[in-house]
Amino acid sequence: MRRVLSGTRPTGILHLGNYFGAIESWVKLQDEYECFFFVADWHALTTGYEDTSNLREYTKQVVIDLLACGLDPKKCTIFVQSHVPQHAELHLLFSMITPLSWLYRCPTYKDQMRELKERNIATYGFLGYPCLQAADILIYKAELVPVGEDQLPHLELTREIARRFNFLYGQTFPEPQAILNTVKVLVGTDGRKMSKSYGNTIALSEDLESVRKKVMNMVTDPARIRKNDPGHPEVCTVFAYHQIFSPEIVSETEEDCRQGKIGCVECKKRLFENISRFLEPIQARRRELENDLDYVLGVISEGARKAREIASRTLQEAKDRAGLL
Amino acid sequence: MRRVLSGTRPTGILHLGNYFGAIESWVKLQDEYECFFFVADWHALTTGYEDTSNLREYTKQVVIDLLACGLDPKKCTIFVQSHVPQHAELHLLFSMITPLSWLYRCPTYKDQMRELKERNIATYGFLGYPCLQAADILIYKAELVPVGEDQLPHLELTREIARRFNFLYGQTFPEPQAILNTVKVLVGTDGRKMSKSYGNTIALSEDLESVRKKVMNMVTDPARIRKNDPGHPEVCTVFAYHQIFSPEIVSETEEDCRQGKIGCVECKKRLFENISRFLEPIQARRRELENDLDYVLGVISEGARKAREIASRTLQEAKDRAGLL
Ligand code: SF4
Ligand code: SF4
Repeated sequence: MRRVLSGTRPTGILHLGNYFGAIESWVKLQDEYECFFFVADWHALTTGYEDTSNLREYTKQVVIDLLACGLDPKKCTIFVQSHVPQHAELHLLFSMITPLSWLYRCPTYKDQMRELKERNIATYGFLGYPCLQAADILIYKAELVPVGEDQLPHLELTREIARRFNFLYGQTFPEPQAILNTVKVLVGTDGRKMSKSYGNTIALSEDLESVRKKVMNMVTDPARIRKNDPGHPEVCTVFAYHQIFSPEIVSETEEDCRQGKIGCVECKKRLFENISRFLEPIQARRRELENDLDYVLGVISEGARKAREIASRTLQEAKDRAGLL
Repeated sequence: MRRVLSGTRPTGILHLGNYFGAIESWVKLQDEYECFFFVADWHALTTGYEDTSNLREYTKQVVIDLLACGLDPKKCTIFVQSHVPQHAELHLLFSMITPLSWLYRCPTYKDQMRELKERNIATYGFLGYPCLQAADILIYKAELVPVGEDQLPHLELTREIARRFNFLYGQTFPEPQAILNTVKVLVGTDGRKMSKSYGNTIALSEDLESVRKKVMNMVTDPARIRKNDPGHPEVCTVFAYHQIFSPEIVSETEEDCRQGKIGCVECKKRLFENISRFLEPIQARRRELENDLDYVLGVISEGARKAREIASRTLQEAKDRAGLL
C-alpha cells in the first residue's frame, strides 16, 4: 500500500476552509493508502514563534477536529510533529546538503516575507522550512503528498533534496509525487479570501448561533434591492456556499435567484440549515471527544509511537549512508 | 560542580595542534568541573558533507585519541554529537527564533566562505552552524565553554540566543561564560600556519619514523650556514617546538644557538627525542585501545546515554516553555 503524508499547522482551530481544502480528502485517502497525518507544530513556530500561548491548546484541538471529521486512528496514523524527534534530526542532516539559493528562490518565501512583514519572521527557521518539510515527507519515505497547486514548488524542493541526498550518499529516498487535491476553495463569509486574520472563517467547532449570524450577514448580490429583483448568483457569497453545502438545491436556487423568485433572507436560512446539518455530527463527535481527553491523548501518543517506529528506521539508514557513526 | 562543554570536529585524526590547542586543557578541566566533551560529527558535515567517506573512522579515531591523551570516562562524559538527538531538536527550536541577520554578521561566516570557496559550502546548514553550536552548549545548560579567542563571537551568539529564548518564553537557559584557553599555538612543521591541507601537521598517532623525517626537514634559521654561525631561535620552527616539548633545555638551547655552539642537526635530534617521549605513552595507550574496540564503543555508548539523560530533561523543559504539546 503506498504511503501518503500530509500535515496541518495548528495556527488555530480548524475551519470550513481547512476542511474542504484538505481534511475532506484526508478522510477519503485513509481508505486507499497507508496514511500519516500530522499536526505541524514546528511549522507553526516558523511564523508564530513570538506568541505561542495558544499553541498547545490548538494542537490538541486540531487533533480533536481531525477525529471529529472522521479520521480513524485504526486506519491512519495521526501524530504531532514535535513528538517524533527524527523530523528534527533528518532536517539537520538535510540542512547540510541544501544550498541556500534553493531556499531563497522558493516562490512562497518572498511572498510570505511581504505578507507577514509586521511579524519578525526573517529567522533562520522560516527560511529553512522547505527543508523541514522535506524531512517531514522523506522520514516516512512517503510516495504521495496531497498538495494544493500553490505548494507544488515546495514538493519539487523536497524532490530536489531527495535527489541530492541520493546522489551524494547513494539511493535512499523515493521522490514523492503530488496528489493534486480537487480542492473546493471556499471564500470568507465577507466575500474576501478566507483568513483567520479577517475574522471571516467558520470554525468546525463554532457555536451554531454564531454561524447563523455570519450566514445572515453574508454579502449577497448588491444589485438585488427588492426581493423579486433578478439576482446574479455568480457574485454572491451565499451562492458560493450553497455550491458546497446544498448540492441538491443548487440549480433550483440559481434559477429562483435569477428569476427573482427567492428572497436573500430565505436563501440564507436554507444555507444555514445545510451548514448546520453538516456541522452538527462533527460537533456532536467533538463533544464526545472533549469529554474523553484520555482517548485523544492516547491517539496522539500511539500515533507518535507508530510514526517513530518507521521514522527511526529511515533515520538510521540515512545517517549510515551519510557516513555518521 | 559547574558544567563545562566542549567539542572537536572529526575532520581528521587529532594532531599536535589539536592537542595543545584544546585537548591538553580538557584533560585538566575534567578534574575541576563536570565536563561533557563531544565529537562534533554534525559540525564536520557543515564543511565536509561532499566527502564523508572517512567520517565514521575519524569519529572513532578521535575518541581513541581523546582517551589516549588522558580523558577519563569516569571523570567526564565523552560522546558523539549525532548520538544525542536532542542537539538536533533544540537546534530546530533555536532556528525558529534566530534572526538570519545574526548568522550573516558572524565574523567567521564570511572568512570561511572565502577560505573554502572551492567547496560548495553555501548551504543552509553551514550558515546555521552557530545555531547548532548554541544548541550543543545550552542543551546541557553548560556554564563554561573553553574557547579560543577567535571563537568568542560564536559564544556571544550562543548567549544572544539564550537571552532571546529566555525573553520570549521565560528564564530557561544560563548564559555560558568563556574559559579562555591559555593555548599554546603550534606552527606547522614547515613554519606556516598548521593545517592538514598543508600536510604540515604531526598526528598523535603518527609513526615515529615519519615524525623524525618531519622534524629533520624543519626549516631553521636561514642565516645559519655553518654549524657555528650564530643563530636566531626566534625565527626557527625547531625552536618554536622546543618551547613546548623541551621546557628543561629551552634556555640552554637558545643560548647555544645564539652563540653558535650547537648545530641544527643536533638540535633537531634533541627535539625529535622529546616529541617521541611525549608521543610514546599516548601511542602505547592508543595501541591498547585499538585492540579493545569494544571498550571504546562502550565508552561512546555510555557517554551518549549520560548525555541524553541530561539533554532530554533540558529539551522537555525548553519545549514546554515554548508552548509545544
Ligand atoms: S437569492 Fe441567494 S443566491 Fe441570490 S443573491 Fe440572494 S442570497 Fe445570493
Ligand atoms: S640550532 Fe636549533 S634553534 Fe638554532 S637555528 Fe638550528 S635548529 Fe633552530
